[in-house]
Amino acid sequence: MSGLHLPEPEPLRALIEALKRLPNVGERTARRMAYHLLQHDLQGAQQLSETLARASQQLLHCERCNSFSETKICALCTSERRDSRLLCVVETPADQNMLEASHGYQGLYYVLMGRLAPIEGVGPQQLAFERLVQRATEPEVHEIVLATNFTAEGETTAYHLTEILRARGKRVTRLARGVPAGSELEYVDASTIAWALQERREN
Amino acid sequence: MSGLHLPEPEPLRALIEALKRLPNVGERTARRMAYHLLQHDLQGAQQLSETLARASQQLLHCERCNSFSETKICALCTSERRDSRLLCVVETPADQNMLEASHGYQGLYYVLMGRLAPIEGVGPQQLAFERLVQRATEPEVHEIVLATNFTAEGETTAYHLTEILRARGKRVTRLARGVPAGSELEYVDASTIAWALQERREN
Repeated sequence: MSGLHLPEPEPLRALIEALKRLPNVGERTARRMAYHLLQHDLQGAQQLSETLARASQQLLHCERCNSFSETKICALCTSERRDSRLLCVVETPADQNMLEASHGYQGLYYVLMGRLAPIEGVGPQQLAFERLVQRATEPEVHEIVLATNFTAEGETTAYHLTEILRARGKRVTRLARGVPAGSELEYVDASTIAWALQERREN
Repeated sequence: MSGLHLPEPEPLRALIEALKRLPNVGERTARRMAYHLLQHDLQGAQQLSETLARASQQLLHCERCNSFSETKICALCTSERRDSRLLCVVETPADQNMLEASHGYQGLYYVLMGRLAPIEGVGPQQLAFERLVQRATEPEVHEIVLATNFTAEGETTAYHLTEILRARGKRVTRLARGVPAGSELEYVDASTIAWALQERREN
């Protein structure tokens, strides 16, 4: 839809431009979204308008874990059921949610809200590493579990955090790498297999 | 992200639900969109909220062509440069825009804002066929060019419109089917080639 030749109504044009600020949404998708809402779901358009305004205004970052929260400290951080000796560092609330869904972790979290990406101008300052270090070096934290992604950027982030936190005498661990549960070796990529071999354990 | 186990802040949950009303947006995409806006583009969130509200309130359907318009009759329909003897019927404003971009049409339009889809409950009534018939049978309209899509539903829509409009003595034409410009026969599907053969012309 590169060449637009119609005299497009301004409110429609403005809506399409705004929709293009969503990740992975280009002109064509934005246009389809706008038509859908305006033609078939005006109620949805209003709901989206209101929830956007409300979320932008009401959501804070939890002072302890840095994730989105309505309150200064989020419900998970104040829960007495969690083991406060463990602090798991994740990139995003979505990652945190995956860990919770695994039912394999009972400690607390710190959500970076990103990962080191020098090319995009995301360094330790942008991620507020100082805040994390302050939180992670509290005396009650016995172990910091790094659960950043196993991508180049996630690994770099984990590497740097390990350096910083070890230097302060903290125990730092990383999620295990290996063959995914339920997968056939034939369909697992070579570097995963290499890792799984290197980190093999007594059975 | 099927099992959500985190106590998610309500304004965030509400925003994710609203984003899921966009076409082809599921839980995971909606979540990514919400995080992106709230973490990296609060200004974008506000812009989207405002444009949604404004578009829902200000956009009308043009009384002549049925497309979105800020005014009772849209700019294209009032333009004196257009040939009012031709009326092209399209499914959506996006299709109309593609035709305009081709620079091959100088007539007026009627935008159905949909196509016949009995399974989804979209019949002649939902598409307001009566309004189209009223417009198409105005004396100044000499030819109705059907430019609905060449899909099963678009073809059905074209078939029914042809029946109705021919019965009222109108000349009804359809966009030509054939091999797309610039394409190699090897990569064109068989039914397109069959059509192109059947509708072959003197050269």
